[in-house]
Amino acid sequence: MGLDDIARKPHERLTAHLAGDMARVNALIRERMASEHAPRIPEVTAHLVEAGGKRLRPMLTLAAARLCGYEGEDHIRLAATVEFIHTATLLHDDVVDASAQRRGRPTANLLWDNKSSVLVGDYLFSRSFQLMVETGSLRVLDILSRASATIAEGEVLQLTASQDLRTDEAVYLKVIRGKTAALFSAATEVGGVIAGAPEAQIRALATYGDALGMAFQIVDDLLDYDGSSSVIGKDVGDDFRDRKLTLPVIKAVALASAEEMAFWRRVIEKGDQRDGDFGRALAIMDRHGTLEATRQDALGWAAKAKAALARLPSHELGEMLADLAGYVVARVS
Amino acid sequence: MGLDDIARKPHERLTAHLAGDMARVNALIRERMASEHAPRIPEVTAHLVEAGGKRLRPMLTLAAARLCGYEGEDHIRLAATVEFIHTATLLHDDVVDASAQRRGRPTANLLWDNKSSVLVGDYLFSRSFQLMVETGSLRVLDILSRASATIAEGEVLQLTASQDLRTDEAVYLKVIRGKTAALFSAATEVGGVIAGAPEAQIRALATYGDALGMAFQIVDDLLDYDGSSSVIGKDVGDDFRDRKLTLPVIKAVALASAEEMAFWRRVIEKGDQRDGDFGRALAIMDRHGTLEATRQDALGWAAKAKAALARLPSHELGEMLADLAGYVVARVS
Repeated sequence: MGLDDIARKPHERLTAHLAGDMARVNALIRERMASEHAPRIPEVTAHLVEAGGKRLRPMLTLAAARLCGYEGEDHIRLAATVEFIHTATLLHDDVVDASAQRRGRPTANLLWDNKSSVLVGDYLFSRSFQLMVETGSLRVLDILSRASATIAEGEVLQLTASQDLRTDEAVYLKVIRGKTAALFSAATEVGGVIAGAPEAQIRALATYGDALGMAFQIVDDLLDYDGSSSVIGKDVGDDFRDRKLTLPVIKAVALASAEEMAFWRRVIEKGDQRDGDFGRALAIMDRHGTLEATRQDALGWAAKAKAALARLPSHELGEMLADLAGYVVARVS
Repeated sequence: MGLDDIARKPHERLTAHLAGDMARVNALIRERMASEHAPRIPEVTAHLVEAGGKRLRPMLTLAAARLCGYEGEDHIRLAATVEFIHTATLLHDDVVDASAQRRGRPTANLLWDNKSSVLVGDYLFSRSFQLMVETGSLRVLDILSRASATIAEGEVLQLTASQDLRTDEAVYLKVIRGKTAALFSAATEVGGVIAGAPEAQIRALATYGDALGMAFQIVDDLLDYDGSSSVIGKDVGDDFRDRKLTLPVIKAVALASAEEMAFWRRVIEKGDQRDGDFGRALAIMDRHGTLEATRQDALGWAAKAKAALARLPSHELGEMLADLAGYVVARVS
């Protein structure tokens, strides 16, 4: 490994290692997002798909399949499937959150309208479904259909749980499993399934993806309160202003004094936020050590992800996946 | 057949004939729309599913399977699948159309919010997908995933084609195939597939469903301009006010004089509608006979549906399906 390789971030090393496969995934994505009859579809989709996301989820599928020695064609289809599901959920999320920006660009619902985002999301979801049917693997279909239901259920749960101070850590974990970990986990699991890997390896891949996704989302939620070391462009305090109940706040609410509880009720439940409230929230969390406790939870999930990799064949892709788990939490280490 | 039976409408006779199967479909729908974690899901879904729709689409699946002699269990799953897909599209349609009422009741997006309608629709779509995977039939999955893509594509096409006077009959037919006929056709086709019917019969069932759906939607669009004999509760003139380009207007635009074209541009493209414009639109359509021509098209599709049934085994369900095709156009006969 040269110095250039060492200096690269793990997802860049994965990208380089899987460049041939990923080029084919991108070609398939472009082919399948086309619509002869409705040019609005590729317009909206290209806006998102070409926006320069890291293609993390399809990369997980490719890496899992290759790590298990797969030499066929279906991992390309499954990687495109996973990216289509992800893109469809982004389109619908932006409608639900009424977002104006994603990845530093205006969202599709702003450029076109909510209608286009809803319907093009439905189209991509249908196309993802067609792609996975083409693999002819009922087990893959079972995994991905279950993941889709978990994603949708998590999103609805988030909708009803937000601004409700009774939301506990168990509910939070269900929400982020739906929001992030379910698709990560399905992405790695189907890679193993399509490769015909032994059951223990398939379970290890599913565990890796799940734990990686949990770590990823907890870090994301933590950085919204403690973004000093953040390498992402997200604004600190967005979740607070949106009154989203994420782990650092949930932990603080569980330990709140009567006076603090009154504060959380006002700013989260009632949405009555004043100058200095974000600073006061940080001070309360600092007093109870909930940012540090959240950080420890993220590190725990990353460690679980790495541990799962030990049950897989020795392979340079395994090392890259381990580095990826470390990289995800490095943002808060 | 007693007098009571003769007096009944065809869909009521089908309902009575398939009552045992349909009770099991309803039980399965209730079971699968439940969500342990997100009670909002069954709330929203029950509002729609229990709203007393005619369950026409699942009935088509049950009838097709039984007509082909099916004695298994999977037609119940597939009928529930089809109803879930239909309900998911209704939820998303109401968001896209910003509707306030459906089947005489407030829509889910009005009672809850657009967010719930988008996400619960996604949940139902995922659940439908899980249900069909349980049948273990890749052919069924192929048919239903293709139908889902056609539905979504048709909806996007409708979005971009509406208010555009260049929309011709070919585009209109694609839109209504997506909007209505694709799911009707898939509903009947999978009934035949699951029953292991010969290819010619499966094709006949698909053709019946498609033609029935086309007739159904054309009649619906016609009644919006000529609802004197209407038995439905829909208000005449809704499509005109919403500037939707449906078949009676498309035919009138194709035959328009320069003066009429200016009228259509003003009321449809520009949306500048004044008192008396709906009456003027009716007079123009009457002059060119486009309501009658639209009626003839609907009758043609109903005849095609009936003709397809001739290629199926002789069965009392076949007679009921033929009556159903007649009933659909009886509203304009």
